[in-house]
Amino acid sequence: MVASVQLYDTTLRDGAQKEGISFSVVDKLNIARKLNELGIHFIEGGWPGSNPKDVEFFRRARDLTLANSVLVAFGSTRQPGASAEADSNLKALAGVGVATVTIVGKSSELQVVKVLETTLEENLAMISDSIRYLKGRGLTVFFDAEHFFDGFKANPEYALRCLRAAAEAGAACLVLCDTNGGALPDEIVAAVKAVRDKVDTPLGIHTHNDGGLAVANTLAAVAVGVSQVQGTINGYGERCGNANLCSIIPNLKLKMGIDCVTDDELARLTEVCHYVSEVANLVPDVAQPYIGSSAFSHKGGLHVSALAKWSDSYQHIDPGLVGNQPRVVVSELSGRGNIIYKAKELGLALPPEGKELKELLSRIKWLESRGFQYENAEASFELLIRRARPDYEPLFELVDFMVVVEKKRRSPAREELEEMLSEATVKVRVGSEIMHTASEGNGPVNALDHALRKALLGCYPDLASVRLVDYKVRILEESVGTESQVRVFIESSDGLNQWRTVGSSTNIIEASWLALADSLEYWLLRQKKGAL
Amino acid sequence: MVASVQLYDTTLRDGAQKEGISFSVVDKLNIARKLNELGIHFIEGGWPGSNPKDVEFFRRARDLTLANSVLVAFGSTRQPGASAEADSNLKALAGVGVATVTIVGKSSELQVVKVLETTLEENLAMISDSIRYLKGRGLTVFFDAEHFFDGFKANPEYALRCLRAAAEAGAACLVLCDTNGGALPDEIVAAVKAVRDKVDTPLGIHTHNDGGLAVANTLAAVAVGVSQVQGTINGYGERCGNANLCSIIPNLKLKMGIDCVTDDELARLTEVCHYVSEVANLVPDVAQPYIGSSAFSHKGGLHVSALAKWSDSYQHIDPGLVGNQPRVVVSELSGRGNIIYKAKELGLALPPEGKELKELLSRIKWLESRGFQYENAEASFELLIRRARPDYEPLFELVDFMVVVEKKRRSPAREELEEMLSEATVKVRVGSEIMHTASEGNGPVNALDHALRKALLGCYPDLASVRLVDYKVRILEESVGTESQVRVFIESSDGLNQWRTVGSSTNIIEASWLALADSLEYWLLRQKKGAL
Repeated sequence: MVASVQLYDTTLRDGAQKEGISFSVVDKLNIARKLNELGIHFIEGGWPGSNPKDVEFFRRARDLTLANSVLVAFGSTRQPGASAEADSNLKALAGVGVATVTIVGKSSELQVVKVLETTLEENLAMISDSIRYLKGRGLTVFFDAEHFFDGFKANPEYALRCLRAAAEAGAACLVLCDTNGGALPDEIVAAVKAVRDKVDTPLGIHTHNDGGLAVANTLAAVAVGVSQVQGTINGYGERCGNANLCSIIPNLKLKMGIDCVTDDELARLTEVCHYVSEVANLVPDVAQPYIGSSAFSHKGGLHVSALAKWSDSYQHIDPGLVGNQPRVVVSELSGRGNIIYKAKELGLALPPEGKELKELLSRIKWLESRGFQYENAEASFELLIRRARPDYEPLFELVDFMVVVEKKRRSPAREELEEMLSEATVKVRVGSEIMHTASEGNGPVNALDHALRKALLGCYPDLASVRLVDYKVRILEESVGTESQVRVFIESSDGLNQWRTVGSSTNIIEASWLALADSLEYWLLRQKKGAL
Repeated sequence: MVASVQLYDTTLRDGAQKEGISFSVVDKLNIARKLNELGIHFIEGGWPGSNPKDVEFFRRARDLTLANSVLVAFGSTRQPGASAEADSNLKALAGVGVATVTIVGKSSELQVVKVLETTLEENLAMISDSIRYLKGRGLTVFFDAEHFFDGFKANPEYALRCLRAAAEAGAACLVLCDTNGGALPDEIVAAVKAVRDKVDTPLGIHTHNDGGLAVANTLAAVAVGVSQVQGTINGYGERCGNANLCSIIPNLKLKMGIDCVTDDELARLTEVCHYVSEVANLVPDVAQPYIGSSAFSHKGGLHVSALAKWSDSYQHIDPGLVGNQPRVVVSELSGRGNIIYKAKELGLALPPEGKELKELLSRIKWLESRGFQYENAEASFELLIRRARPDYEPLFELVDFMVVVEKKRRSPAREELEEMLSEATVKVRVGSEIMHTASEGNGPVNALDHALRKALLGCYPDLASVRLVDYKVRILEESVGTESQVRVFIESSDGLNQWRTVGSSTNIIEASWLALADSLEYWLLRQKKGAL
């Protein structure tokens, strides 16, 4: 086994093939900066020969200062039956302004014959010519041997010839690819060992997750001597995704003792991975190993009481090592113990009496049966506990609201004269005073948000600093169509702190109204107590 | 390696620990029926000693006819310092009406001392007494050795003593658990081999996915002789989840040649797993190996053109084997080739002229930049293509709408006198006629849905058979709060066919309106052409 490996991230190229991802040039520059902070050795920025946006990326990336990372451009071997010099893809690659490039070529007999539709000898020449061309321009060249493991299984001799052609032409690393993602760890080990025996060039591994084994296949390859590990943040990639660096990095470092990033870099893992999912505009997988928000959360009463005795009893590592944290989930399944633990964690005094506590528990269960969920809405949970206390006095009370959404054409036949209007009126009581006001907005919930703030600003001018930073809608009981229960999560910020609230109703406007009101009341309450 | 394994599903017990899952008794009965159809050998139904809902489940499960599956109840070893006869948990287990039970006990020295807070000898007695008690009542007993792999690493001798105690007391299977989910495949293999050398009882494997290796760890254990495989559908479970049976089953059968389910049962895999995610009310992971809707989808132009030449060029198995299907994704990244391929797949004639095709492509790009996404909305995509043809005549045209949502208290001080109202008015043109009508609904989108149908039913009475079966909301650009772009997906059905449409706007009502209108127009169009 090697003592250290180099990490090669292809989120910006192969990862962007995931359904639903479409990175802008600015997105890619921002992600590259973050990958540098994580200590990734190589960042594959794109394929300039296939995508004009990627040419622009490499142009603007010249201004990036990457202390830890080398930027790499991707391309493919020359066309069959042509020269490397005449290949526009290779020319684009050589001219893009990076010192290291990766080119992909075929290493499977069947792929050469059926897809490339050329001869086995011509494919070898394509590999060799392309690498020599790029080497001749002073570049370091990595060779991605596409479909290597499938090719090796069907015709090991030819697959090895492809690698030797790349090595002899001067490739600095031969990256063995499980392109279709269907290999088993034992097959990976056998193939890597066979290559190891025949070739001296350093090896890399690039796997896909079609069998759910991309991480295991990568670790297995490292265990038999591969020194470059390719993957993507959050396992993004076409079909079932690429090997997930968020799992591979901590497994290498914490479990296998292989050097790849520093302790400080590892502690940024959770933050970096969540940043990338935000830029990709994809909901993070809460159950993702190491970095998911549920990765160290506990819901079962048995586990929660064990944790109180020994923090490592139900966790495989200290979550702080990867920048994550333990969490106890308040849920329908939880007993009294979980709620007490959670209240303690939040520093809240529970109703001391058994009867009041019992009422609170059954109220939580009732609300959860109506679609409220407190797992991700700790501010609403806190309000629920506070409101259960006999001395609780609400800072304001919602009385009425009305929302109007209107789409009108000024002339029925002229589509271009269309107008959209959203307007909300609200009535709120603060003490004995009634505030009644109205506002427009960019959509009905936005109008309601504006109107509610406007109504409260007179009494609570500090509220001006509070704003919504996230608004999520979840439809429950999906089979009922537009009559479904709707759950709304709102995340708010005053610039310093963030908090989350929940509302639920069959009416999306009402659900939003409840979550909005909780958000503002929570902040006012904390403010009043000097706790925020 | 064994020739066949038995599958043990714990979705209903360990799987239900996943954040966000809360199965009703009816949900559990329905899932058990589906697991039987999949050919699962053992279905762990719940923990009657810890949850009254589970007692009810087992009572009602007596009426289930499960031709392929054995229902199993779960419990834990007796309390320290008490007798098995006096243990209410064991009594509940014995009285629940099943012939097979699983009990969990500690097999890690540290867990016994720190969490159980008893002696190592007492823990052995707890294991032995509990199994003998259940065996004495005629039950088959499986023993889950909790924290086995961590325990074996720290104190192999004691971990093995726990297993021997269970074997001697008559356990029919010793299930080795990676409870904290942090083991590596090599550690699993070494521990299983050590057990194999000392104990003759059949072995099982139960892993969690905290290192992203649960599937690999399970397969590794099977490769060295384990014959019972525990896991959950979709990998549901606490923290990062349990070993995912949806990946394990096809890997065992198709990759390792190990018998576990029939070919027909395997072909139901995708359907069963999606059914369970529907009941769990969790969005299925589109990238899930084998069964995800993206698992065999292709977005990159290179892959799509290779697929046209050789269908296996970018897939590791025939997707039909697991009941899935290949799919070409229409997306912003796709070139002309993808859109032409997709249109061909849908049997649509594209505008023949280069110029019209170009306009269609740039319209798709423009709409996608405004939040529309056609990957999951093929009906809207088809309308887009049809509308690009010069001879296209719309069957109706949306002119105006207005939606009012109102919450009023009949008396400002009396919360219980609250009323919610949602009302929509719509104006629609069919030919030269204008329909103008109104309707109430259970929420604003529901009201709009009712009003639009009402307006069109006069001209198109057959529309009465169309109904919405799913309504999904996705907030884009999440950082902008309630001003965000909103994407709405609608799935509709006429009882025979289902189709999906998309709408996007900063206004959720307008986005819903667009998706609703596409849904109805699509059906009318198909109906008119006799294509539905």
